[in-house]
Amino acid sequence: MTIPLETISEKNNVVSMIEWLASFGATVNGGVTRLLYSKAWVQAQQALKAEMKSIGLDAYFDSVGNLFGRLDGTESDGKAILTGSHIDTVVDGGKYDGAYGVIASLLAVKRLKAKYGKPKKTIEVVSLCEEEGSRFPLTFWGSRNIQGAYSLDQVRGVKDSEGVLFLDAMKEAGFPPENYQSPKRQDIERFIEVHIEQGIVLEQNKKSLGIVSHIVGQRRFTVKIVGESNHAGTTPMYFRKDAVSVASELITFLTKRAQEINPHLVATVGKIAVKPNVPNVIAGEIEFSLDIRHHQEAVLQRYCQELFAYMEEKVEKAGMTITISKWMDVKPVELNCEMNTVIQQLADANQISYQNMISGAGHDSQVFGGFCPTNLIFIPSHNGISHSPKEFTSVEDLEIGIEILSEILYKLAY
Amino acid sequence: MTIPLETISEKNNVVSMIEWLASFGATVNGGVTRLLYSKAWVQAQQALKAEMKSIGLDAYFDSVGNLFGRLDGTESDGKAILTGSHIDTVVDGGKYDGAYGVIASLLAVKRLKAKYGKPKKTIEVVSLCEEEGSRFPLTFWGSRNIQGAYSLDQVRGVKDSEGVLFLDAMKEAGFPPENYQSPKRQDIERFIEVHIEQGIVLEQNKKSLGIVSHIVGQRRFTVKIVGESNHAGTTPMYFRKDAVSVASELITFLTKRAQEINPHLVATVGKIAVKPNVPNVIAGEIEFSLDIRHHQEAVLQRYCQELFAYMEEKVEKAGMTITISKWMDVKPVELNCEMNTVIQQLADANQISYQNMISGAGHDSQVFGGFCPTNLIFIPSHNGISHSPKEFTSVEDLEIGIEILSEILYKLAY
Repeated sequence: MTIPLETISEKNNVVSMIEWLASFGATVNGGVTRLLYSKAWVQAQQALKAEMKSIGLDAYFDSVGNLFGRLDGTESDGKAILTGSHIDTVVDGGKYDGAYGVIASLLAVKRLKAKYGKPKKTIEVVSLCEEEGSRFPLTFWGSRNIQGAYSLDQVRGVKDSEGVLFLDAMKEAGFPPENYQSPKRQDIERFIEVHIEQGIVLEQNKKSLGIVSHIVGQRRFTVKIVGESNHAGTTPMYFRKDAVSVASELITFLTKRAQEINPHLVATVGKIAVKPNVPNVIAGEIEFSLDIRHHQEAVLQRYCQELFAYMEEKVEKAGMTITISKWMDVKPVELNCEMNTVIQQLADANQISYQNMISGAGHDSQVFGGFCPTNLIFIPSHNGISHSPKEFTSVEDLEIGIEILSEILYKLAY
Repeated sequence: MTIPLETISEKNNVVSMIEWLASFGATVNGGVTRLLYSKAWVQAQQALKAEMKSIGLDAYFDSVGNLFGRLDGTESDGKAILTGSHIDTVVDGGKYDGAYGVIASLLAVKRLKAKYGKPKKTIEVVSLCEEEGSRFPLTFWGSRNIQGAYSLDQVRGVKDSEGVLFLDAMKEAGFPPENYQSPKRQDIERFIEVHIEQGIVLEQNKKSLGIVSHIVGQRRFTVKIVGESNHAGTTPMYFRKDAVSVASELITFLTKRAQEINPHLVATVGKIAVKPNVPNVIAGEIEFSLDIRHHQEAVLQRYCQELFAYMEEKVEKAGMTITISKWMDVKPVELNCEMNTVIQQLADANQISYQNMISGAGHDSQVFGGFCPTNLIFIPSHNGISHSPKEFTSVEDLEIGIEILSEILYKLAY
């Protein structure tokens, strides 16, 4: 089956849809702020619900605010193919992250229905309520609820930065906690997500699609080194316990070793706090974040072991102390390999350039990958920019994402 | 001449004086906050003025608030020997920094006068109004005015962190700007200051006195590196322009080179600011302070040249940009060598252990050193701690400082 672009797509349809959705929570910088359960978020979900209805889908919310648009299959076995992404954004984020995946799923199903009518298998489009964790520290609140991995008890004390209780925000958005029942789904056969890459690999390699084999595991740490604060003029170099200079050696080492160990391994020190942080005082303390990612748990393990042994030895030798605290440990996920082979064949058949790749960012697919066959497809991000009003993907690439998703859904459901 | 400790000193006299002066601006932490022209500062200067009078000195303020206690010489040539230090402190500073030098001068003159009466040469004790620059960015406001290096026009716009104009604060303290006339002095023959070391060298070497040959020159810079902010997961290591990792290499290098080039050279990165400073975002920008000190201009010059060439090459090679902005350049000062030889002889004669040393911190002597023969003497700082309520020097060491100052003044003025 081939759906030629020009025949099914109204001109700029996908771009109009992106702009339309971005109008809910539009920022002065040309970006979008659509935090979970905020007014802009409610309006966007309600508008999407109306849109789902208008194209003949059975639209409904679950009790946490995930929005589904169901197209029942003629030969239903009670299972559904789920496709979509998330509606929430970071503060002043872009128009494409998450939103594009929801729109792509909606347009793919709309076009398939227009052309071929009802599928054999049931398809559901989903606009997941929360992936980023930008307002509350509840990354994947939407998808993890569908997995049955959350309960209200876990979120009772959670507040946003302005002190608003999570449960109050939920109620305000129209999802009163008293109506909560675990939105766990056991009828989902598989999950398919299209998403912008949020990196520069596809653009650099001039590919239209990234077929994702793995989503990386992530370990995040806070490293704290305590030395001795002292006068920058009266303390000879040999006598210092300078937390900044020893941390610099560690960061230099960890960067170099990450490059050596494996081409896919990344290690990032993005946040630094120095005490007392005064030009003429030797730093007595430094705290820095360390974000380490790879798609193989064994590589993460090897790197961390070697690195932390080196760090501890180095800091101890300098007469200082080090504390390494882990605050995130997300395991790598392998996406459905058989389906990825099918997706490659569909791309080949449609003369779409693609490459296999690893996702360095987390996605809802990471959650679904743990409980059903899941696939994730990337389209290019211009200059690799994401989480910024500068996010951009060309209309051609946006359409190719919808095309491949349509092909996949046709193959699976028709 | 020898002044035996037990005969001239009332028990704990110097300690009582230290505690008495520290009561003006005492903090809950046991430290002192006595900022220029604050209430605590005014009360302390007024109390010192009364004390000067009570021991028979001719006490007066100049128009910026430097307090002098003059003891006219019987064979005056119109010149005066000036001795003292500063009254202001950092926020929550110690009881000894500056204050001890004022008290030591006062007690030395008091004891000399009690024992020997009037000197031949005129001696003036000085409580300088401002050295730290903690409230207003006007380090050495006191001593530089005596040197004639300031005018009111230079300070008209200056405000403290609460928005109070410098000139308003001056007026409030009893020094109305309309009464200002340059307090430049041309009758000062020499300046002698005793001060706590604010470092650990004397204590480590078990010496009671440090005879200072030089005060270091200081160059301070802000180094800014601009790379590219990017996603910590989706940006491969080889593609990064990570400002933190390149800065770490530079800091590692500059620390190592400072150690290699000269044992007296110190280089400190005390302050760091990262942008956007988020754990999962590669830093697009870093700004760090760089404080470099040595007592020889040539060494400073050589180190800076080599370092900055290295930095620029390294950063350019990494595809980033670097800006190095100098915001302080204080030249090294050599203290009076002949007098230092005399001080050594006096210490030997009085069996006081001493060592020659370099001051890594700035002092009022640095200003006076530029326009008259000047000497600076250190006494130990327990654990090298300064600018902290934990500043401490034993009564024995405090008395030795007074003893050597008395010996010097006796030699010069009697």
